[in-house]
Amino acid sequence: MNADNIQIDYQGRLLHFLSLEGLNRRHLMEILDTAESLLGVAERRVKKLPTLHGKTVVNLFFEASTRTRTTFELAAKRLSADVLTLNIATSSAIKGESLLDTLRNIEAMQCDMFIVRHGQSGAAEFIARHVKPHIAVLNAGDGCHSHPTQAMLDVFTIHRHKPDFNNLQVAIVGDILYSRVARSLIQALNILGVTDIRVVAPRTLLPVAVNKLGVKVFHNPHDGLQNVDVIVMLRLQKERMEGALLPSKQEFFQCYGLTEERLALAKPDAIVMHPGPTNRGVEIDSRVADGPQSVILEQVTNGIAVRMAIMSITLGNHARPAVVDNL
Amino acid sequence: MNADNIQIDYQGRLLHFLSLEGLNRRHLMEILDTAESLLGVAERRVKKLPTLHGKTVVNLFFEASTRTRTTFELAAKRLSADVLTLNIATSSAIKGESLLDTLRNIEAMQCDMFIVRHGQSGAAEFIARHVKPHIAVLNAGDGCHSHPTQAMLDVFTIHRHKPDFNNLQVAIVGDILYSRVARSLIQALNILGVTDIRVVAPRTLLPVAVNKLGVKVFHNPHDGLQNVDVIVMLRLQKERMEGALLPSKQEFFQCYGLTEERLALAKPDAIVMHPGPTNRGVEIDSRVADGPQSVILEQVTNGIAVRMAIMSITLGNHARPAVVDNL
Amino acid sequence: MNADNIQIDYQGRLLHFLSLEGLNRRHLMEILDTAESLLGVAERRVKKLPTLHGKTVVNLFFEASTRTRTTFELAAKRLSADVLTLNIATSSAIKGESLLDTLRNIEAMQCDMFIVRHGQSGAAEFIARHVKPHIAVLNAGDGCHSHPTQAMLDVFTIHRHKPDFNNLQVAIVGDILYSRVARSLIQALNILGVTDIRVVAPRTLLPVAVNKLGVKVFHNPHDGLQNVDVIVMLRLQKERMEGALLPSKQEFFQCYGLTEERLALAKPDAIVMHPGPTNRGVEIDSRVADGPQSVILEQVTNGIAVRMAIMSITLGNHARPAVVDNL
Repeated sequence: MNADNIQIDYQGRLLHFLSLEGLNRRHLMEILDTAESLLGVAERRVKKLPTLHGKTVVNLFFEASTRTRTTFELAAKRLSADVLTLNIATSSAIKGESLLDTLRNIEAMQCDMFIVRHGQSGAAEFIARHVKPHIAVLNAGDGCHSHPTQAMLDVFTIHRHKPDFNNLQVAIVGDILYSRVARSLIQALNILGVTDIRVVAPRTLLPVAVNKLGVKVFHNPHDGLQNVDVIVMLRLQKERMEGALLPSKQEFFQCYGLTEERLALAKPDAIVMHPGPTNRGVEIDSRVADGPQSVILEQVTNGIAVRMAIMSITLGNHARPAVVDNL
Repeated sequence: MNADNIQIDYQGRLLHFLSLEGLNRRHLMEILDTAESLLGVAERRVKKLPTLHGKTVVNLFFEASTRTRTTFELAAKRLSADVLTLNIATSSAIKGESLLDTLRNIEAMQCDMFIVRHGQSGAAEFIARHVKPHIAVLNAGDGCHSHPTQAMLDVFTIHRHKPDFNNLQVAIVGDILYSRVARSLIQALNILGVTDIRVVAPRTLLPVAVNKLGVKVFHNPHDGLQNVDVIVMLRLQKERMEGALLPSKQEFFQCYGLTEERLALAKPDAIVMHPGPTNRGVEIDSRVADGPQSVILEQVTNGIAVRMAIMSITLGNHARPAVVDNL
Repeated sequence: MNADNIQIDYQGRLLHFLSLEGLNRRHLMEILDTAESLLGVAERRVKKLPTLHGKTVVNLFFEASTRTRTTFELAAKRLSADVLTLNIATSSAIKGESLLDTLRNIEAMQCDMFIVRHGQSGAAEFIARHVKPHIAVLNAGDGCHSHPTQAMLDVFTIHRHKPDFNNLQVAIVGDILYSRVARSLIQALNILGVTDIRVVAPRTLLPVAVNKLGVKVFHNPHDGLQNVDVIVMLRLQKERMEGALLPSKQEFFQCYGLTEERLALAKPDAIVMHPGPTNRGVEIDSRVADGPQSVILEQVTNGIAVRMAIMSITLGNHARPAVVDNL
């Protein structure tokens, strides 16, 4: 284990997948290359590989998310794992058991991987620091902090359309402040060498330290979308629409919503992405969401291949023991 | 695809199973013959076939039904498929996603079959019209419209006891008006050449256009049950018992409930059927439900074989591509 | 089938696992020996055996219990069975179907094993008396009556640390009155030849006929824990803490909670057990729960092996038909 970064061992191999922090280009390219080879599996008549046969993958969802849970469940099943879904809010927590006791119990059931979704930032890392060494932990979204598998499926989707990360303009539009998707995606793009990353948002939806993220800030899509290769629209959470940060969702659409006119500012072959589910008429016009430049549904398909890749890589690194520590 | 009937391709092969409309005797006999061969699987020590190994079957239940969901889930698992159950009412719908967006997302996860249960008539067909061509859609009950797999398990059960459809008297008793089971069963019996189909119900529980269904109408079990080979009792929905259409459930039992006396009006070897769950003392007397002429539990067993048959046939027709269209 | 004891056939073989009543040392040793060999499976790279491939195991939970359900589900999956979970309270019961009708329907789906959890004593036995002979029934806890798989995992855990049952002092501490765990464990220890079984509890938490259980009664841990080899702390149900039987949970901890001081009364190599989930600071001090003598998490691991053993044995005895009855 690496003292600074729990998710990589001292040989630099990925043991968990918690956030993009501390990862390098080699880690990310291994995921992208593995996902590329797994994408073909989903198109075969028999969509299953025996990679995780006999392994037990546990969905630890402290926060409901049918969509994310489903893609992880399918990814695990297509690798032949047994899958257990635990909705923690409604189970042992009600008996007053602490999180650590719950963890200890599930790991005593000899599970191999925890997929963690939690409302609090740092929850997945906390769990990774406390589980037994044979267990791999994947972060399926923690608070506003990180959603690294979503970031990886986003860069995988970009890579399939625009293979050269070094000559790429990417615009991320919307609620940057609260978006774990945006935070992770910006990190991944930085690691992969994208130099022109733009965020386009009103001041109220930008973090204070936005200039430290390695991005250019725009408050106006007219400037921010000029000539970009990729537009990533973020989902506007309902809480935000109702809160004080935004006047109304109609006004947000008027100022930031992706219409055909705004899309025309980008390069002619630009692709349009969205982590889903989309709010049509809020972040994005239906003609754009369903239009020829949209790759929103490809993202869903790619998400399964990317999650299969991350599962295979992290569990594979657990299975091949590292060279003994105290040589 | 057939312009008039989405569930059969232009070669007449079954791609979906949405309703009995437009199907012919050959389609139904293929299902019955396949189910007959699959019935043996359930009696083997290893109750599994590899037919759908590597396929993903999604239960799309917009309406709760443990019983129906369970039989589809078992049928899929016994064909070695991976099964995903999505209770739509409690998932993405709450994020304001439209039905079509939900569909697009699930199909992007490269699923192969949707089992649809929905409170609205026509929902399964709507979905079949909008999914990608490689996906098979099975209707597991839509509103008052259709419940075709139930009808097929009913005719399969009849066929195993009374092989000659041409010389058969079948009486269907109870709530014809609201019953998707009755509607589908009458269609299936008509297709299979049953000429004496009787419905026995009070006027308030009969559809206005009942005479167009190809049935004889009786308001009195004493007349309707005379000499029949098969009695199908329908489930009386609680909503009906409490509504204005019926005086009380006691009175319904007095007028229509299947007692040993009424059963004696039928042929001595008549069989008694019910789609379940039974309301004992409302539609049927316990002595009849548990008596020697009852085949109610056989229907449950047959239901799994019939659903396995329909899954195998429809997915098989998707896998073998039709002769190219534009020859 | 045995007239007196439904769970063993007339050749003395285990068909169901409902309670410890009527079982002998040979039955229990077969379970312990089989579990010992299955414990190794969980440590292999591929944690699966084909023993129950093609079998359908149904979790019939009339009472919620994520923890117990999960261990049975994992045990069944690691034996390659298909698993169906039915939360009965929320399914057909709401349509007014009786328990027997529900059973009849599930058995008609050709399932092989029912795992029953029910709030009422005797529910699992009632079900075993009414299912078809090919189905094995396992009691996963019925009211205050019995929790026999928990008792078996407890004696299995004891056996791995203290192989000689004949020279063993076991103290069971806490709510003996309402505990199905205590009741079953005392029976199992008696069958296995443990002669010094102690219960340590306030008078209000002891059954009236406690002296008929084959145990020594102590009201004071200072006396009861002297020199014991095994301490089993019971979970104090919240209902009890709030009821009239106990002054407060703080006072319970002061009088009965297992602290390091009290643990020092036992033999130096004594083991500490708890069925989980623990109430830290009520029954047990965290330093003891997490200390070197605690085997609480081993119990969880052992629980899966023991349940796999009981599933294999009972279904195996169903598969090998007994010598014909009427010779």
